[in-house]
Amino acid sequence: MSSLKFSRKAKRRKSSVWDTYAPPFDQMAKRFFGRSFSWAWLACVPLALVIVATWNTAAHAQEDAITAENVQFVLDNIWVLVAAILVIFMNAGFGMLETGFCRQKNAVNILSKNLIVFALATLSFWVLGFGLMFNEATPFIGLGNFFLSGYSTDGPEFGNLTAPVFFLFQAAFAGTAATIVSGAVAERIKFTDFVIFSILLTAVSYPITGHWVWTGAGWLGGLGFSDFAGSTVVHSVGGWAALCGAAILGPRIGKYQDGQINAIPGHNMSIATLGCLILWIGWFGFNPGSQLAADSAVPYIAVTTNLAAAAGGVAATFTAWMMSGKPDLSMIINGILAGLVGITAGCAGVGFFGAVIVGLIAGVLVVFSVGFFDSIKIDDPVGAISVHLVCGMWGTLAVGLFDTTSGLFYGGGIGQLISQIIGIVAIGLFTVVFSSIVWTILKSASGLRVSAEEELKGLDIGEHGMEAYSGFLKDTSDMGGVA
Amino acid sequence: MSSLKFSRKAKRRKSSVWDTYAPPFDQMAKRFFGRSFSWAWLACVPLALVIVATWNTAAHAQEDAITAENVQFVLDNIWVLVAAILVIFMNAGFGMLETGFCRQKNAVNILSKNLIVFALATLSFWVLGFGLMFNEATPFIGLGNFFLSGYSTDGPEFGNLTAPVFFLFQAAFAGTAATIVSGAVAERIKFTDFVIFSILLTAVSYPITGHWVWTGAGWLGGLGFSDFAGSTVVHSVGGWAALCGAAILGPRIGKYQDGQINAIPGHNMSIATLGCLILWIGWFGFNPGSQLAADSAVPYIAVTTNLAAAAGGVAATFTAWMMSGKPDLSMIINGILAGLVGITAGCAGVGFFGAVIVGLIAGVLVVFSVGFFDSIKIDDPVGAISVHLVCGMWGTLAVGLFDTTSGLFYGGGIGQLISQIIGIVAIGLFTVVFSSIVWTILKSASGLRVSAEEELKGLDIGEHGMEAYSGFLKDTSDMGGVA
Amino acid sequence: MSSLKFSRKAKRRKSSVWDTYAPPFDQMAKRFFGRSFSWAWLACVPLALVIVATWNTAAHAQEDAITAENVQFVLDNIWVLVAAILVIFMNAGFGMLETGFCRQKNAVNILSKNLIVFALATLSFWVLGFGLMFNEATPFIGLGNFFLSGYSTDGPEFGNLTAPVFFLFQAAFAGTAATIVSGAVAERIKFTDFVIFSILLTAVSYPITGHWVWTGAGWLGGLGFSDFAGSTVVHSVGGWAALCGAAILGPRIGKYQDGQINAIPGHNMSIATLGCLILWIGWFGFNPGSQLAADSAVPYIAVTTNLAAAAGGVAATFTAWMMSGKPDLSMIINGILAGLVGITAGCAGVGFFGAVIVGLIAGVLVVFSVGFFDSIKIDDPVGAISVHLVCGMWGTLAVGLFDTTSGLFYGGGIGQLISQIIGIVAIGLFTVVFSSIVWTILKSASGLRVSAEEELKGLDIGEHGMEAYSGFLKDTSDMGGVA
Repeated sequence: MSSLKFSRKAKRRKSSVWDTYAPPFDQMAKRFFGRSFSWAWLACVPLALVIVATWNTAAHAQEDAITAENVQFVLDNIWVLVAAILVIFMNAGFGMLETGFCRQKNAVNILSKNLIVFALATLSFWVLGFGLMFNEATPFIGLGNFFLSGYSTDGPEFGNLTAPVFFLFQAAFAGTAATIVSGAVAERIKFTDFVIFSILLTAVSYPITGHWVWTGAGWLGGLGFSDFAGSTVVHSVGGWAALCGAAILGPRIGKYQDGQINAIPGHNMSIATLGCLILWIGWFGFNPGSQLAADSAVPYIAVTTNLAAAAGGVAATFTAWMMSGKPDLSMIINGILAGLVGITAGCAGVGFFGAVIVGLIAGVLVVFSVGFFDSIKIDDPVGAISVHLVCGMWGTLAVGLFDTTSGLFYGGGIGQLISQIIGIVAIGLFTVVFSSIVWTILKSASGLRVSAEEELKGLDIGEHGMEAYSGFLKDTSDMGGVA
Repeated sequence: MSSLKFSRKAKRRKSSVWDTYAPPFDQMAKRFFGRSFSWAWLACVPLALVIVATWNTAAHAQEDAITAENVQFVLDNIWVLVAAILVIFMNAGFGMLETGFCRQKNAVNILSKNLIVFALATLSFWVLGFGLMFNEATPFIGLGNFFLSGYSTDGPEFGNLTAPVFFLFQAAFAGTAATIVSGAVAERIKFTDFVIFSILLTAVSYPITGHWVWTGAGWLGGLGFSDFAGSTVVHSVGGWAALCGAAILGPRIGKYQDGQINAIPGHNMSIATLGCLILWIGWFGFNPGSQLAADSAVPYIAVTTNLAAAAGGVAATFTAWMMSGKPDLSMIINGILAGLVGITAGCAGVGFFGAVIVGLIAGVLVVFSVGFFDSIKIDDPVGAISVHLVCGMWGTLAVGLFDTTSGLFYGGGIGQLISQIIGIVAIGLFTVVFSSIVWTILKSASGLRVSAEEELKGLDIGEHGMEAYSGFLKDTSDMGGVA
Repeated sequence: MSSLKFSRKAKRRKSSVWDTYAPPFDQMAKRFFGRSFSWAWLACVPLALVIVATWNTAAHAQEDAITAENVQFVLDNIWVLVAAILVIFMNAGFGMLETGFCRQKNAVNILSKNLIVFALATLSFWVLGFGLMFNEATPFIGLGNFFLSGYSTDGPEFGNLTAPVFFLFQAAFAGTAATIVSGAVAERIKFTDFVIFSILLTAVSYPITGHWVWTGAGWLGGLGFSDFAGSTVVHSVGGWAALCGAAILGPRIGKYQDGQINAIPGHNMSIATLGCLILWIGWFGFNPGSQLAADSAVPYIAVTTNLAAAAGGVAATFTAWMMSGKPDLSMIINGILAGLVGITAGCAGVGFFGAVIVGLIAGVLVVFSVGFFDSIKIDDPVGAISVHLVCGMWGTLAVGLFDTTSGLFYGGGIGQLISQIIGIVAIGLFTVVFSSIVWTILKSASGLRVSAEEELKGLDIGEHGMEAYSGFLKDTSDMGGVA
């Protein structure tokens, strides 16, 4: 600033004292070059100094890294870090939801699964999964960057994001896919088998199908398949793996006894509701964070997400109310989650009304879906398959219908819808084949399922040697759930 | 950058080779114009090029939207989004607090109310409430922008905030007002009636009184009424509606039996305490987020908020300790909330000592207020009226006393205090009239209150057909609360 | 912008119409000065105007405070505020963890302690602690800035941070140190004595040792002692205070009866697990927030933190599994916390592999440490001493081994390790002496410990006159824990 002021003064000075200095130069020039010059162009010198000074200041600012570009870079990374933290918090949501929806005798087991699964997902995704997913060697699978190697730790590597923040966000997503499985196989699976399956899902299967969609190299993304935050990539994948697991495990003892569908009530609706609300706010990291940048589209995504969640909750409440005569808390919870899963694929591309419709339909769907899976004797204690698989597929299709650019109802033609169907089928097929193979191997190796005696007594004692609520008297007629 | 370097080189070159080129031009000019010129002004050309280049770079940066102004715009929106998420998380806080403070036989009912109420608030505020509140057609009510229409989705619409983020933040506030009611009417209200009341409160009443204060058009704001984050606009409004509801509903069976005030202990102090801590951190979105921008005043507001919360907790603890001989956990909890509600109006304008005093007084007030409402047989199971109405009024008055600019104790005269009183009375009157009408209509239409039999048995079975803690043995002597 | 366009037009015009105007000026000059001038330098005037205009714009932007520097300043403060909120949320984590790990008959007591402790820490740190810690009067203790006085409220005071946000972040840290103590002395300490100890710890002891490390004036920092986020400054300090308290209090009745170590199971593993997950995400404020700025190193710290947590959880799970034959949920929880405490000192300086190794070792350590303290009959109901003291020391030493710049295993020599040992010893000695004196005084003044009758009956009734889970039937054989 001082240098600029100086140069302006210098210029003013010039118009008064210039002539004093110019003539001798003129004389010198005449003598030296043999001709006279106008020295007026020297007036440009102070201006040049100004520009040089300004330039130096700018260069110095760049060294100090305080340019608007740099602040935006930091802001992008800090926002996605905050979003990643919200997604990681979803582990608490899933943990409380699933535990609360199951019986107290299995609480320790479910808590243990949900707690260790994010630890395992973090490590296996760091070792293998991230490389398989985000290395762009082939359209089908990544083949490098294992252990998060080959990236700078603090420069932009994925758009404006550093490798660490992108890894953390993506590891949290991988953990989500594994956690979804946990609920559907609860109350009967062996702890060790669940641990092994989770590692394989997060280290191998999820990264491969994710690679198809969320990398520049991926073949499904190339086809135009659109899944902004993972209705299919995360939720349906978890849902398919859960469906295969639940089917191969078989239902809990007493669930479908005597030709009836017996309700096995959860033991703690307080923590289940807390879990739902934690998941709700976690989704504000899941969907808006998937913008992978801090910009003005981020809050828009938060609003479509919130409208769909609200619509899903209301729709499921009233659907269940009409069907059973009472507003069922577990259906309010699952309706909200259904709306959230449903909007996940399209949250950035649909309008407000579209978001509400997507949520409403998801909320209705989830109620009927829970009934459907019970009718075919797939026992899913927490409704994970209905929420994540069914509404995940619905949400992915909904992009082809409601996207304001490419959706069928918005004049975008049938193309997007076809791409969506291809993606759903391809990823579903891969995940079903992979999951079935792993579940089957585990079943032949170890039996997969705890003994009937242990199941009746509760997995907490059998698998972990402790109980969740020591000091409280329990209803021992509850031993067999309904028996 | 390269173009600038080029020009500097060109300038240096000029002083050595200029003469080589200038004379021929001079000759040409002489021939063409019939006289000799000084060509020295041509020296300005490279400088002009520099400036043009710089200008183009700046223009290009603007196209790319990476200017400091733009980054600040994004930062404002991201921060208020994070604040909105924290406020939305308060639903979990209220849900756990209210459920824990009530009996286990009503837990599902309270959880259901607290969960669905934010879904309903989101939708009703989107459809109607936001337009009534923030459209600026008249000083008394908004008359447009329903369904969040008429705004761009990603440009600045409210100061620097986009319409989506401003809507989300405000919808979370509207939901808070409705949630406050939930606690005071708990354990005896019909689920349907609560749902209808919540919709009307968030869609009509709250937006109208809020319009008076928080829009440029509002008449109360015009009078100088100051309520930074809503001690009156949110908390007292919820509190008045709660008071009317509790009065019209009457006390729970057994609460004021045989001329005594019978304590009906909460069933789960663990989740109640968790709820308080969630509300505490939620308030860091509520108050600092109300700055509606990211600037250096935001952390200051967080500190006044935290000091008042701490002071309220300590004051209530010791007040209750002195009165009952023991430190009562429910009073620690309500003292913290009292401090938070109390500082909400003045958090941006008071000093650190002022914040501590506001919190201390709120903490003492809440203890006596709980006793007072019991003495007039207004049965408020969770103390919501004392926390939100009484401390909301206190906090609003406190602006007139402790605001460092306009407060009476800081030489600001009596004017602010008078404005505060006018606002408290006007908003209180409107809300009481509105609430009383709605509660009365609901009472004549449906009875409002569940049957005595259902109340004794618990609303969970009667209203929802399920219980919260299946598998645990309960104390059946608890059926009537105290009977 | 318009002025710039104008000047460019003016320049172009000049080359065509200049000659029309120049000659008369030339004539005038000849007459006035007696010689001819080249007026070509006047061409510089429009350029000067451009620069003046640009300068004015820049100056105006500075007045409006929207420069990249200013946005970075705001971003630094907003990020550290968010981090502070996450750290404050850790109070909910510790509260749920400790309560869940203890018996239901003492739940209200533990909840009360954990709730009031942050209120007290806020106030005592505001009054005294912050000044003792961050005023830089001497290398050993601060001597000013009490009540957060002497700072501007919205300008940069600590690096780029404002005094309010720095205070809030640091107060949350002070609260953490006090909360650690709570768990180790649970189920037998008098409420009043715990309150007094917490005030003294946060107001005096913690600030003094913190001053040594985290201020420019501090003697330990000057020696090269490195503790980025407080493995020693926060966690070991809390751990030493906890160890002294647990030793002076003696074990709970029944814990080491008949020469055996009797397990006293926690009453609510659901909320304990929730507490662990809340602490996990709280640590994303604790460690990355300790960067005290928003930059691209922040997410890196989040990743090392997460890797260590995951490794700690996995290591403790398998260690406990191998030793006891079952995966113990309380060890999964404590393993995760061990990994988090372990990485706290080195999170900014270690590599990914280093972080994993630090976490793995912490996870193994915590299992053996729990066994060790039981073997010497130090009764720590929640494992706080093993997690915070033992792994805090390990993490501090690990900087001397794994820091990629100064660590022994990375070619940094033995110097850093020696500095780390000096710091551990110095801070440990001071805290042990201080804590022992305070605990001993409290013991002689009030007995420190509740009566055996009260301990058997539960502190909730004795100290607070209420129970945590009213309406549930409890196992009265649990009265003596194991008796």
